[in-house]
Amino acid sequence: MILISDNIHVMNPKIAKAMNDMDPKPIQDLASEIKNSGAKIIDINPGPLRKDSDKMMAFLINSVQDATDLQICLDTPNPEAIAAGLAVCNDKPIINGFSLEPHKMEKVLPLAVESEAEIVGFLLHPDGKVPRTLDERLSLAATLAGEAEKVGLAPEKLIIDPIVVPISWEDGTGQANDVLSCIRLLPELLGFSVKTVVGLSNLTSGAGAKTASLLIEQAYLAMLAEAGLDMVLLNVLRKKSVATANVCSSIKGSRILSWGEFDV
Amino acid sequence: MILISDNIHVMNPKIAKAMNDMDPKPIQDLASEIKNSGAKIIDINPGPLRKDSDKMMAFLINSVQDATDLQICLDTPNPEAIAAGLAVCNDKPIINGFSLEPHKMEKVLPLAVESEAEIVGFLLHPDGKVPRTLDERLSLAATLAGEAEKVGLAPEKLIIDPIVVPISWEDGTGQANDVLSCIRLLPELLGFSVKTVVGLSNLTSGAGAKTASLLIEQAYLAMLAEAGLDMVLLNVLRKKSVATANVCSSIKGSRILSWGEFDV
Repeated sequence: MILISDNIHVMNPKIAKAMNDMDPKPIQDLASEIKNSGAKIIDINPGPLRKDSDKMMAFLINSVQDATDLQICLDTPNPEAIAAGLAVCNDKPIINGFSLEPHKMEKVLPLAVESEAEIVGFLLHPDGKVPRTLDERLSLAATLAGEAEKVGLAPEKLIIDPIVVPISWEDGTGQANDVLSCIRLLPELLGFSVKTVVGLSNLTSGAGAKTASLLIEQAYLAMLAEAGLDMVLLNVLRKKSVATANVCSSIKGSRILSWGEFDV
Repeated sequence: MILISDNIHVMNPKIAKAMNDMDPKPIQDLASEIKNSGAKIIDINPGPLRKDSDKMMAFLINSVQDATDLQICLDTPNPEAIAAGLAVCNDKPIINGFSLEPHKMEKVLPLAVESEAEIVGFLLHPDGKVPRTLDERLSLAATLAGEAEKVGLAPEKLIIDPIVVPISWEDGTGQANDVLSCIRLLPELLGFSVKTVVGLSNLTSGAGAKTASLLIEQAYLAMLAEAGLDMVLLNVLRKKSVATANVCSSIKGSRILSWGEFDV
């Protein structure tokens, strides 16, 4: 399971301030910390970026690239910011992402096709709503993969995100279970071993005691690993979550455990 | 996932002393603590019990039954002790267990058939050796289920234990992965939804730092839950492991989470 850091996010007050001040130092420092965590990819989420989106995206990417050579994931709904990011990244980034929403299909998906970048496809309805059943998720996945292929996206460039919702929602555990089933069923449904990713932090966002949240996050992360998840977007400064992911990857990959690594 | 306490074990020095002194108090106290943990079944493992096995088994069971009404699991290779236990239990116990080893097939399995008790079937070779590949585990499962049915065990009375080995073994992660695959494949292989159990404490027995052991145990427990494990034998005084099992059961059963329960 490949770890993608979700820490460089406009909702992180330190990042918001650095963006406001155009000060690269806090971003560089955090990027170094992320690299040391074992993450292989850094997601950069500046929000929708209403003005000067190209400059801001370039500033963020250059700040991260000053500190690390990790692959970057461009996480914004703004197509201009994505295009600017594609131009600035030293290595080909991942685009995060598109869905069946018409403006995403028209403006974001073509950027991946043209640049031959990997792109995350969210299992959301065309009106942006979250699916409520497993059948809805599977049906959205088949449509999404079909539409992406039609416009020329190579199947190996698609990374499906089945959408993890807060477990505190009324149907939160049911949706968490549907996501697991979806991950497991996708390869057979689509006829190829499609890559998958989830945003793990959303599971416990805004709810419950800190200790309970961490325990729930770790348990679900291990279940996702067993279900066959390929990549996970998470707070990589949560050492026990990272260690849990590494335990699971060692087991799924039948690799020797380096015991001390998990003593966190 | 049903939790079975592995705490009443002859290797626990308090239990060994209580058995030596024939003092019920420490056993009653521990049984009460186990009940409060949320376990549904108490495994009683007095070892092979070379002499007065019937008296010792009766003493242990009566001590436990004085303190709780939880179901009992009779965990000894000694057929006389199992027979004595069957006679003393208020409610029908689980027998733990048999394998393709000839003396187990001849002496232990018939006790389950006669008493119509559930019985754990270990996936071990007839010479007692642990299987080393997934194919070996699956082949042993098919043979074991076939042999049990032949002598009249109802399929719903069989609980298969695919054997968790220490993860510190040279092929420990590979075997851990095989156990997950085995649990997932058994229903299709056997043609019925056979119940499964593992002994979790064996995963981290005798190795590594305490913190790392607990993290590895929790991660693997969540993977087992996702693979479809029905019952788990574990140290139920490890609160985070119990909480992890309960998170996973809530997700697999699409039940509302009682958040405070996981703040351990």
